[in-house]
Amino acid sequence: MNALVRTLARLTFLTGICCAGKLSNESTPNIIIMLMDDMGWGDLGVLGQPSRETPNLDLMAAQGMLFPNFYTANPLCSPSRASLLTGRLPVRNGFYTTNGHARNAYTPQEIVGGISKEELLLPKMLKKKGYTSKIVGKWHLGHRSQHLPLEHGFDEWFGAPNCHFGPYDGIRRPNVPVYNNSKMVGRYYEEFHIDRKTGESNLTQIYLEEGLGFVLRQALARQPFFLYWAADATHSPVYASRRFLGRSQRGRYGDAVMELDSSVGQILSLLRKLGIEQNTLVFFTSDNGAAVMSGPNESGSNGPFLCGKQTTFEGGMREPAIAWWPGKIPEGAVSFQLASVMDLYITSLALAGISPPNDRTLDGLDLTPVLLHPPHETHNTSLTDRPIFYYRGDELMAVRLGPYKAHYWTWSNSWEEFKTGIDFCPGQEVLGVTTHAQKEHTMEPIIFHLGRDPGEKYPMSALTQEYQDVLSRMAPVVQQHKKTLVPGSPQLNMCDLAVMNWAPAGCEKLGKCLKAPESKPWKCDWPH
Amino acid sequence: MNALVRTLARLTFLTGICCAGKLSNESTPNIIIMLMDDMGWGDLGVLGQPSRETPNLDLMAAQGMLFPNFYTANPLCSPSRASLLTGRLPVRNGFYTTNGHARNAYTPQEIVGGISKEELLLPKMLKKKGYTSKIVGKWHLGHRSQHLPLEHGFDEWFGAPNCHFGPYDGIRRPNVPVYNNSKMVGRYYEEFHIDRKTGESNLTQIYLEEGLGFVLRQALARQPFFLYWAADATHSPVYASRRFLGRSQRGRYGDAVMELDSSVGQILSLLRKLGIEQNTLVFFTSDNGAAVMSGPNESGSNGPFLCGKQTTFEGGMREPAIAWWPGKIPEGAVSFQLASVMDLYITSLALAGISPPNDRTLDGLDLTPVLLHPPHETHNTSLTDRPIFYYRGDELMAVRLGPYKAHYWTWSNSWEEFKTGIDFCPGQEVLGVTTHAQKEHTMEPIIFHLGRDPGEKYPMSALTQEYQDVLSRMAPVVQQHKKTLVPGSPQLNMCDLAVMNWAPAGCEKLGKCLKAPESKPWKCDWPH
Repeated sequence: MNALVRTLARLTFLTGICCAGKLSNESTPNIIIMLMDDMGWGDLGVLGQPSRETPNLDLMAAQGMLFPNFYTANPLCSPSRASLLTGRLPVRNGFYTTNGHARNAYTPQEIVGGISKEELLLPKMLKKKGYTSKIVGKWHLGHRSQHLPLEHGFDEWFGAPNCHFGPYDGIRRPNVPVYNNSKMVGRYYEEFHIDRKTGESNLTQIYLEEGLGFVLRQALARQPFFLYWAADATHSPVYASRRFLGRSQRGRYGDAVMELDSSVGQILSLLRKLGIEQNTLVFFTSDNGAAVMSGPNESGSNGPFLCGKQTTFEGGMREPAIAWWPGKIPEGAVSFQLASVMDLYITSLALAGISPPNDRTLDGLDLTPVLLHPPHETHNTSLTDRPIFYYRGDELMAVRLGPYKAHYWTWSNSWEEFKTGIDFCPGQEVLGVTTHAQKEHTMEPIIFHLGRDPGEKYPMSALTQEYQDVLSRMAPVVQQHKKTLVPGSPQLNMCDLAVMNWAPAGCEKLGKCLKAPESKPWKCDWPH
Repeated sequence: MNALVRTLARLTFLTGICCAGKLSNESTPNIIIMLMDDMGWGDLGVLGQPSRETPNLDLMAAQGMLFPNFYTANPLCSPSRASLLTGRLPVRNGFYTTNGHARNAYTPQEIVGGISKEELLLPKMLKKKGYTSKIVGKWHLGHRSQHLPLEHGFDEWFGAPNCHFGPYDGIRRPNVPVYNNSKMVGRYYEEFHIDRKTGESNLTQIYLEEGLGFVLRQALARQPFFLYWAADATHSPVYASRRFLGRSQRGRYGDAVMELDSSVGQILSLLRKLGIEQNTLVFFTSDNGAAVMSGPNESGSNGPFLCGKQTTFEGGMREPAIAWWPGKIPEGAVSFQLASVMDLYITSLALAGISPPNDRTLDGLDLTPVLLHPPHETHNTSLTDRPIFYYRGDELMAVRLGPYKAHYWTWSNSWEEFKTGIDFCPGQEVLGVTTHAQKEHTMEPIIFHLGRDPGEKYPMSALTQEYQDVLSRMAPVVQQHKKTLVPGSPQLNMCDLAVMNWAPAGCEKLGKCLKAPESKPWKCDWPH
């Protein structure tokens, strides 16, 4: 812990400020969303990781509610994160590209766009009831000044706007800055070390301290808070602190998981020590499937699911998800509700007693009935029937309704890419499904029953009554969705070397401003 | 429950015979081995099954010890079961064939052979300390009179000698008999119904009652017991009782899992009610990997592992495994010990204080230190270093040592079979690994690090130091194993229609004797 946290902690425990009654406010519960980066469904012990590196997360599930059918809104980080914070599909909030058909896009340093000022992010909405909000870790909704977290409702930020790729030479490309609130405090590979050879970095420890410190301060101030804890140690280049390196059976990736798991445990433990655990919803999930194309040292596991990150197969979009709220959410519960990262927006607002914006379409569902009053019988009939939409760019690739998933388009990646060794489905191949050309199936979608066939290996025969019944239920859902969809203005079309993090706010004081090249915008190339 | 169990149960609970002290005998703990049929590693909730059908098994794991690195001795039922009961590899106990190279063999009705009278089965050994032993369910070590359970140390049996394939016409092939001890009491599809259309059968309920009744009788008689509970509802044709049919999200297979899970819960619950749970080791596992070649309605899940039943990839031989012994085995423990179904033999003997036979090679390890005194730190260094051998027939296909697995031979199944649609690795293909020809790699084995790469997708480069180091550690282990191996006489070479279950003991009384055809033995054809 850093000095602040240590001091406050000592003070707190010495004076015995620890009782729920004093610090809780039933009408405005605290909200913590822990969002992992490229962590896969199969990376948790409780979800079947053979090397079982997550005792704290497994305990969190045992004390809370597990969602085996939880989805992200996009198989890539930036759009997924934009959807979490807006409660809207990327195709609505602008986090997509139209530069090519069905392409994934995100926010590298050369991206011109970012989160639109028209979007109402969760922390901004939560202000209506006096919440203080902090993001710790990766932002990824645009790195230009107007796109940064404090411009969109967050009160505090410690972290970086982009991925921790690098190191860069500062000439052709600057290293990514790390911010403390509105000012940079250094750069990755400079003040914030990541050893590409050993994988050592203490970033997760820093993020942990930032999270703990914020929780402690808010608890002592008796102010409701929203903590968005977005650690990124499981995103390539994968890293861990020295004392975690070499501890897992999986190498560096497992070491990173162990450190994140330990951090989750410490955050939950602090909530209990402060006596605010009964007034705090903690939700753990990940931004997209494991990046299996990165190989075993740099990526996690999607368990029994097909392919991974970048794809609209289950491995790309089904996420580990645990809700924890002692005294409110029943222990050891499992909800089969089809749920989405976008639900966290409207659910958080519902918990805070804030009406969601009524001037725009939201794609989320209010999960509070599921969380707080789960049915005793977990049979499907008791669940809210809602579709899950799987997009690449502005193309609706697939839809899930109940146990059925219909693929209207299939694509893993292009033959050209595949032949260079980039494989989004290593070791997996389902004929006519994991296609290397964009294949349209709108006339006769490929349908899977994800209960019987979670791995999307056995397409249902189009000749069966079951197939026809499913299709007749799917068709109106898809039709209605497409008919009413008003796409947002695409933010991820234009790139420009001039917009990179050359001279972020605060660089002068640190003497870390770099010279930007001349502006030469181009249409970004999104290969997959 | 049947009348006996009901009566005894009432008597027991009325008279309050329920305290551990009265019924336990520390020096001869009871042993229950629950062996599932074709259930995969990924079929348990605690091991990542998305439809989470196993609340009782998940609780059993939470109250006991989970073994994520537990192996069977063969990817097929008969040899696996022979190994469990003899503590020896199939190549030693004779449960293999030499009719073709690297072929899997088992005991269909036309098999002439069975378990040799030279083998010392676990129940026979346990007699030395006064144990009463019962097998409930599938035997599969030969169906001719000299091969049946009561000839090999079991005191009681309720179940069948072969798989529940059928129905047969009784002319070309008889239906498989169901025995009560040494006499048949009916046949599958005749007195013991299995509805092939609906999947309905109450066999699991019968097996449950048989198990409960035995435990109750033994507990009341204060006699140490060994119960080998070998239910087979998850083997194709998969079945479940009416009240379980349609309950799972996975169709019939999941329904069968739910019924087995419920049965496990009832057996553990009875142990607690009788107060003998602190004097009973319960071990749950399966005979081989899920039979993924049977498709989604008739097979389970091998989680993140490659291929399934019939193969020497992880999906074929890594098994779900839980040890449960309240008060003795610590709660919620996970042991990464490489362990095998063959260890249950020597471990059971150790618990009963019986010296294992010293006139033959045993392949098991005594797991009692792992079970009763697990190290606090689950790091690899605290584990017993032992190899796992993966056989097909008498060919050593692969060896695991620590986290490394070396394939000396690879084969999924033949091109001929594959082209007819028989696929042991549906949706999976690893170039040069899931080969459709028998490929020898003895000069340069394909090596995987199963920690980083549990799915066997990324062969290690033979050019690395790590590969060379592993190989130099593997080579002497393999050499020593091969040098000292004395193969048993192969029992699974000869077939004959005359030896089928035409007229099992007890058939006369039931009027169910059938006429055997003339003896015409042939060398069995084992296609894979």
